[in-house]
Amino acid sequence: MSVMEMSHRGKEFLSIIQKAESDLRTLLSIPEEYAVLFLQGGATTQFAAIPLNICTPNDAVDYVVTGSWGDKAYKEAVKYCKPNVIWSGKSEKYTKIPNFDTLEPNPDARYLHICANETIHGVEFKNYPTPIGEKTVLVADMSSNFCSKPVDVSKFGIIYAGAQKNVGPSGVTIVIIKKDLIGNAQGSTPVMLDYKIHAENNSLYNTPPCYGIYMCGLVFEDLLEQGGLGEVEKKNKKKAEILYEAIDSSNGFYRCPVEKSVRSLMNVPFTLAKPELEGEFVKTAAGEEMVQLKGHRSVGGMRASIYNAMPLAGVEKLVAFMKEFQAKHG
Amino acid sequence: MSVMEMSHRGKEFLSIIQKAESDLRTLLSIPEEYAVLFLQGGATTQFAAIPLNICTPNDAVDYVVTGSWGDKAYKEAVKYCKPNVIWSGKSEKYTKIPNFDTLEPNPDARYLHICANETIHGVEFKNYPTPIGEKTVLVADMSSNFCSKPVDVSKFGIIYAGAQKNVGPSGVTIVIIKKDLIGNAQGSTPVMLDYKIHAENNSLYNTPPCYGIYMCGLVFEDLLEQGGLGEVEKKNKKKAEILYEAIDSSNGFYRCPVEKSVRSLMNVPFTLAKPELEGEFVKTAAGEEMVQLKGHRSVGGMRASIYNAMPLAGVEKLVAFMKEFQAKHG
Repeated sequence: MSVMEMSHRGKEFLSIIQKAESDLRTLLSIPEEYAVLFLQGGATTQFAAIPLNICTPNDAVDYVVTGSWGDKAYKEAVKYCKPNVIWSGKSEKYTKIPNFDTLEPNPDARYLHICANETIHGVEFKNYPTPIGEKTVLVADMSSNFCSKPVDVSKFGIIYAGAQKNVGPSGVTIVIIKKDLIGNAQGSTPVMLDYKIHAENNSLYNTPPCYGIYMCGLVFEDLLEQGGLGEVEKKNKKKAEILYEAIDSSNGFYRCPVEKSVRSLMNVPFTLAKPELEGEFVKTAAGEEMVQLKGHRSVGGMRASIYNAMPLAGVEKLVAFMKEFQAKHG
Repeated sequence: MSVMEMSHRGKEFLSIIQKAESDLRTLLSIPEEYAVLFLQGGATTQFAAIPLNICTPNDAVDYVVTGSWGDKAYKEAVKYCKPNVIWSGKSEKYTKIPNFDTLEPNPDARYLHICANETIHGVEFKNYPTPIGEKTVLVADMSSNFCSKPVDVSKFGIIYAGAQKNVGPSGVTIVIIKKDLIGNAQGSTPVMLDYKIHAENNSLYNTPPCYGIYMCGLVFEDLLEQGGLGEVEKKNKKKAEILYEAIDSSNGFYRCPVEKSVRSLMNVPFTLAKPELEGEFVKTAAGEEMVQLKGHRSVGGMRASIYNAMPLAGVEKLVAFMKEFQAKHG
């Protein structure tokens, strides 16, 4: 019987989802006082679920907006509480992360929201702000760097992530939430967005995305076998290092717009000094089996996404190609 | 490159989702004025999405409750509009479907909601009510009999279905909605529950469950190759016929509580005259590779789910087993 055919309430699937949760807890050293939920609907669903679950409509919350995803999260929260953008990188085309000490967070904010890694712009928090308000918890969208490196979960109220970048197929969303935040959803919260329902039912309130959860479990096993997230981070650093080095040593032929100290280990955006060559770059690379290098339609240029599953050899091949391309067109 | 690795915006995946939609349109003869959406979150998410999208908080709506799923749908709607249960089968343990002519629907209802097939109780609408109100549209949860037989889509405002019974793995929800119902969502509707967002973005507003949609597309192809839903219905009728016949001719050893005229072609619940034998029935059947025969925990007894993918030979094997079991214990 395939995982796609099993009853999600049968003991076979129960052992799959329990093993997946247990391995994820080991990987991230998730403390006992946090619940782990396997949900649906992507990070975008959580943009609404978070304020609906932990705020009243009058609660103030703070957003640090370092890219398109943080901006979308903020805009959704407007429907359910009183969000305030305490910093936005928009005017600098989302190439920076602010120094939190220079900001003025609201001490009464229910939460402070960040997007740990902005997929489209390639900016990544290297350390996390500590909220100043007594009742303020840190909430992070980790969709595009989840399980790419160790994280101190105890610093967060909620960590959430779509699975599809590093840990499984699209269609699974993982929420790690401090248990004392669960149970106060606004009355209008759809049952499927209510963390209490999912926590009480161990993510089995209705039929979950069984096959996707099974795949996530296989990935968690693999990450543990690799030696855990410390080892995974080393590999990711090495991959990013040689790619950024290739860009920075190209005498301006390639250019990464992101401030060096906050460059993402996962998403490396870059442009060509001669934009008219970008089409040829993408096309020639595809001819050598390096695909999906076109930048997001909203920013243009190129973007190399080098998630956990991309081997060092893949990045080395790209770097060699970039040097060749430059030699030919530089 | 696997479907799990593709960008959901790349031309490879676009051709997959477009082909899936096109084949589904052929299968169900879906008129041009209906949109087809591939979503996440199961039917349970639609229990909220439907009133949020097509009602104001003051709109009256009618529910015919023929089982647990219809009851859940009603309870969720209470948050978003003014639902009224115009008929409930609860007092008769959900074994009947009412004659619509005897009911008193609200002529001002925005919609009339039914669950076309109640998975747990095994009752199925054999024909569909025609709403009497001028602005009332018929809304049906078809999760557990979707694509099991032809349906006249034009009679409905919205048809919705979790994919996991007949057309794909869990994690995909299909919504077929008359386009003129789209675009009036309540202000508090989460963006992921707003049909307008998904219709405008061809179900690609955020990363969809790509692999699940791919699998649904393969199933639609297969159903077309089988000759379409008329042929599929013939097979399903034959399967159900021999199973109900085995129950009804058992001199009361087996018993199906559902009124004969509305027995489901998909889910066949039955009990043993000697309930103390039920455990052995399930266990012995499992020993012969017939699994998941235990009834839902809320009703007990047995339940044989004979969805599209169950071959006639599987049902024949079960029937032979039932006769043997009766011969031994009757």
